[in-house]
Amino acid sequence: MSLIVLGTVATDTVKTPFGLRKNILGGSAAHFSMSARLFTPVNIVAAVGEDFPAKYINLLKQRGVILDALTREKGKSFSWTGEYEGDLNTAITRKTELGVLLTFDPKITAQQKNIKYVFLANIDPHIQRKLLDQIRAPRLVAMDTMNFWIDTQRRALLKMLKRVDIFVANDQEARSLSGENNLLKAAKRLRALGPEMILIKKGEHGVLFYSRKFIFALPAYPCEKVIDPTGAGDTFAGGFMGYLARTGKVDAASIKNALAYGTIAASFNIEDFGLDRTAGLSLGDLTARLKQFKKIVL
Amino acid sequence: MSLIVLGTVATDTVKTPFGLRKNILGGSAAHFSMSARLFTPVNIVAAVGEDFPAKYINLLKQRGVILDALTREKGKSFSWTGEYEGDLNTAITRKTELGVLLTFDPKITAQQKNIKYVFLANIDPHIQRKLLDQIRAPRLVAMDTMNFWIDTQRRALLKMLKRVDIFVANDQEARSLSGENNLLKAAKRLRALGPEMILIKKGEHGVLFYSRKFIFALPAYPCEKVIDPTGAGDTFAGGFMGYLARTGKVDAASIKNALAYGTIAASFNIEDFGLDRTAGLSLGDLTARLKQFKKIVL
Repeated sequence: MSLIVLGTVATDTVKTPFGLRKNILGGSAAHFSMSARLFTPVNIVAAVGEDFPAKYINLLKQRGVILDALTREKGKSFSWTGEYEGDLNTAITRKTELGVLLTFDPKITAQQKNIKYVFLANIDPHIQRKLLDQIRAPRLVAMDTMNFWIDTQRRALLKMLKRVDIFVANDQEARSLSGENNLLKAAKRLRALGPEMILIKKGEHGVLFYSRKFIFALPAYPCEKVIDPTGAGDTFAGGFMGYLARTGKVDAASIKNALAYGTIAASFNIEDFGLDRTAGLSLGDLTARLKQFKKIVL
Repeated sequence: MSLIVLGTVATDTVKTPFGLRKNILGGSAAHFSMSARLFTPVNIVAAVGEDFPAKYINLLKQRGVILDALTREKGKSFSWTGEYEGDLNTAITRKTELGVLLTFDPKITAQQKNIKYVFLANIDPHIQRKLLDQIRAPRLVAMDTMNFWIDTQRRALLKMLKRVDIFVANDQEARSLSGENNLLKAAKRLRALGPEMILIKKGEHGVLFYSRKFIFALPAYPCEKVIDPTGAGDTFAGGFMGYLARTGKVDAASIKNALAYGTIAASFNIEDFGLDRTAGLSLGDLTARLKQFKKIVL
């Protein structure tokens, strides 16, 4: 089953203890799709500006990502400038330029309206709604967000939560939106807001998945080489949703495998800047590391 | 095989968002043994002062802990006063009274000198050495420490590291002693200092085990009820070492099971103040929750 992702395709300027990269390909939809494409056809819904490098569009195309709903609009592309210090766990945002995102109105093709698997990456919840409204009969909708929307668009966000099956958040966001420090309690409260399933990303500490029927906890894959963690969460989500869309099931075993594949995809993402590592991956690379991962965890 | 633990038996005064408990039974050796006793006979080497409540000694005795090397000495007992705020992950120490620890010189019986499994809980590395010198033919020695000793007794600590098989540290301590932020790299560096195995405790995020032959990563057992995390690390170590001493093996499967039992023991410890929860446990309680845990992780 194919998959559609709404999010950003951006240029990032990233500084980590391992170097500085200027105007590299980034954005939630780019990271998500570079991972999801290993499992299933993936469609990007996003806008870039007139300044957006053609080579980045070509890279996505060459990797099989479907760009029918990627529009080039008047104005500047969305861009993010950030930095990581010592422990590489927390990004310090130096600059965010919204550019074309300010007026972004997602439009998809007639064919795309029939897609069943939807991922609404972190973006204004009003834009998330506009995309979801166009999907005729979604089977599985997952949604991410960030503290900025929790703080400024809470009402729109809460409305969206009632329409999605899976809410994806990092631990900070889960705590902030639920008002609960304990992550299991936080997940319970978030589930009461609508989504059947809650997926809490904890960065280097792995993930916690919560639903009425089952709870899963997975550590991250232990990585020695951590160069740039930007996009790890979206890469995780791409592997997770990609696997679910490929299998077409949402039972316990599929969810577990999806979490494991997401974890492995993210472990590759952080090994180099931007999409440098994930753009060169095959599903075989993921499966080989997954085998290793299964020996490492219980 | 029986087990010997050097550490503290103390009175703790603990404040968490769930209440305040004054002068309750605590200390590394008490927490360790309350967990290890579920697997194997465990001997405590520690000193308490004249003021130490007899009821606490009796509780340990009733639970089968061997107290031949627990001495009552002139002076005050070791006591710790601490507090946890919001996320319950970090203890804020309000007061530490060393009391009899200042002059503690561990002495064990002729029989205890033949014990093969040794746990040196967090205490001055000179005292750790004095105990280890008395063990005739140790088979498996594990050692814990804290930032205070890393900062003030580094040389003595490094000497001890050459004599132990397993070094147990929390993530902060591992980073501080190795000078390396990435935990896998930190573990490698620590292993180069002597111990064949490195066990990094990450609190609510689980554990990372590193040796030349294998790496294991486990999440913590997801707990909704977190009342008082004091002693969770020593409770973990008690389950871990207790299981290894019981099986008499140190192969991959035994290490994995030991890590899992340690994780489960710790998950009970945090559900109530001090030793209130672990004092009432049976091995059956641990095994039942372990079964649940195996469903939750991969």
